[in-house]
Formats: sequence, C-alpha cells, structure tokens
Amino acid sequence: MYRLYEFSSSGNCYKLRLAMAQLNVPFERVEKNITQGETRHADFLAINPNGRIPVLVTPDGRVLPESNAALWYLARDSQLMPDDAFEQAQVLQWMFFEQYNHEPNIATSRYWLHVLGEAEKYAQGLKEKQQKGYEALAIMELHLQRQDFFVGTDYSIADIALFAYTHVADQGGFSLKDYPSIRAWLTRVKAEPGFVSMVA
Amino acid sequence: MYRLYEFSSSGNCYKLRLAMAQLNVPFERVEKNITQGETRHADFLAINPNGRIPVLVTPDGRVLPESNAALWYLARDSQLMPDDAFEQAQVLQWMFFEQYNHEPNIATSRYWLHVLGEAEKYAQGLKEKQQKGYEALAIMELHLQRQDFFVGTDYSIADIALFAYTHVADQGGFSLKDYPSIRAWLTRVKAEPGFVSMVA
Repeated sequence: MYRLYEFSSSGNCYKLRLAMAQLNVPFERVEKNITQGETRHADFLAINPNGRIPVLVTPDGRVLPESNAALWYLARDSQLMPDDAFEQAQVLQWMFFEQYNHEPNIATSRYWLHVLGEAEKYAQGLKEKQQKGYEALAIMELHLQRQDFFVGTDYSIADIALFAYTHVADQGGFSLKDYPSIRAWLTRVKAEPGFVSMVA
Repeated sequence: MYRLYEFSSSGNCYKLRLAMAQLNVPFERVEKNITQGETRHADFLAINPNGRIPVLVTPDGRVLPESNAALWYLARDSQLMPDDAFEQAQVLQWMFFEQYNHEPNIATSRYWLHVLGEAEKYAQGLKEKQQKGYEALAIMELHLQRQDFFVGTDYSIADIALFAYTHVADQGGFSLKDYPSIRAWLTRVKAEPGFVSMVA
C-alpha cells in the first residue's frame, strides 16, 4: 500500500489525497506536524533530507518527495493526465507555475495567518505576498475565461495542483470576489467524480 | 524550427539551449531584455501572460512557458530522460526542488548582484536568500556524495535544470568551496557530449 507522510492542513498534501481518492488508490496516512518541527527530526530527514512534506512512499518502498512530482507519478497513464505529449507538458507548465508563482505567496500567507495565526509577526511579508499572490490569481482568471480546465478540455492533475490552495485562498487573506472564472472553476472541480474535501 | 524567446544571461533560458544542443534540435533565438521590461510589453504578454522567459515555441506554433516544462517536452523519449517511470518522477522531483528551493534564492541573488549590480539596494533580501540558497546547496551536496548524477546513473534534464544556476552560483555570492561533490558533478556535466557553455 502507498504511504503518505503529510500534515493534514497542508494543501500540498491534500493534492495527493484528492488524486489518490479519484484514482481509487488505497494509502495510509502518517501525520507529521510541521508547526512542531516534526519534519526536521532526524528520523524524517532520513526519509526526505529536504525536511518537507508531502512524501509519497510506494508499495515497494521507494520514496518520492515534492507534491507535484508525486501527483505526476500517481496520475501517469490515468484519466487525470492528458494523452497528448504537448498537453502533458502544459500540465507541467501549470504545476511549475503553481510552485513558483502561486504556492510561495498564497500558501505561505495562509500558513502564517491560518495555521500559525501570526498576522502581526508576518505583516511585512504578508504585504509582499498579497501582491504576488493576486498576480498569480489574475493569470489563472485570464486563462479560465477561455477554458473550463487548465489543460485541454478535461480535468487533470494541473487542476488538482492549483485547486489545493486556491480554494482556501481566503484563509491566506485573498478574496476571489473579482475572479468569477476562478470561482466557477472551483465549483467544477468540486463536482468531479470522487472529489473529497481537504478536511477529511 | 523551434523558437526560443530568451534573455541570454538567464540560466532558465540556458537550460533549453543546452538541452537542444545536446539533442541536436535546431532553433532560433529571440532576445528579450528583462532588465528593460521587454517581457512586460503587450506583444510579449500576448505570448506569455505571465511575462516571463523562456518561452519555447514549437515548429507548428504551440507555445510553452516554464523552463522545466519545456525541458521535459524536449527531452521526452530521449537520452536525457530515464526510461523508468519512477526515475522520470524523480527527474521531476529535482526540477520542482530547483524551482522552489534553488532558483528563487541562488538565481535571484545572481540577478540582483551580477545582472543588475544592485548589491546595496537588495542587501536585506540577499541576506535571506544566502541562507536558503546554502540550504539548497547542502541538499545537493548530500545527494551527490552518493551518486554521480541526480537520478539513477545517467545524466538527465534534472542535471541540466540544476546545473544552470549552480555553475554560476559565485555570481550570486555563493561559494562552492565547501561543496566538493557539487564541484565534481559540475565537472562531469561539462564533460557530457554536446555540452555548450552559457555564454554562446
């Protein structure tokens, strides 16, 4: 059985729980509380020297860090991955966008505000991340004005990767009021077969 | 023919020039000077709304932003990509590491110091990025103590992605003096068939 080392409040970990639910892949969960530094202990660093979750462990014991790499591995040759090679590259394009432009701003703001509850301590950082986070949302809005899902015509792991922190962006201080196409897309994602919510 | 929109001082763009040289893929280069805001002009935003380079355009006109997504597309089914699906996921693991832990620290420091020459203006930011950049280098060093290339036994696009800014880390104020395994790996990469240097 797959094993998922995760922190249940983490959107990066939720990506894998959602994909495995939709792919009917059974897995066990091992909670590591990042607010208590549990991913920086020696036992966990032996699994992932980068000290980050999620880490996916395959049934035969191979270890895969990085949420979007693990998403790609789970979804290859499935209905969550396009068949066409160029569309597969576009899936990666949006997943790299997610990790570079979206997650460091929206997820980090949410971590400071919602998980740690430290608005004052991180006031300056939050201000900078607000601007960059809204820039990422604007790019998503523009794209979703033209199509229902991020790549091609079908739901894929690109949608899962971007859904994870977008649907809880309010917990990071971001309003989606001016992003109607994003809101409509969130509704479409939630209607996908096998959808499970983040709080499980 | 492929077209590469690029800024010739950018390591992200160099990744694609190096891969295309090693794959014998002909391409034309279109320079966009990011220090002059040329990727924020309307004509370029029509190509990539994210306003970033590189952008790879295929011979039939399809547009692919994100350096590592374009690397993946070019290298699929080639000698720069492992055959095994799990190793392909490990290639992605290291490319996501590169964009999350390495590039925002080492490449951004290099941009401020070497491209813009603005050490004083960015003094505080440089200090923060020094620490995180060295953390990324420490993870690479640990990994390269055990193996010659990042994934499996062979050179792949994971090495290209990490080589791009590591081999010019000194331009971002990083010393590789205490990273002998990284230095040996840089030498191995430079010895690969078809290697081309960043300044072309």
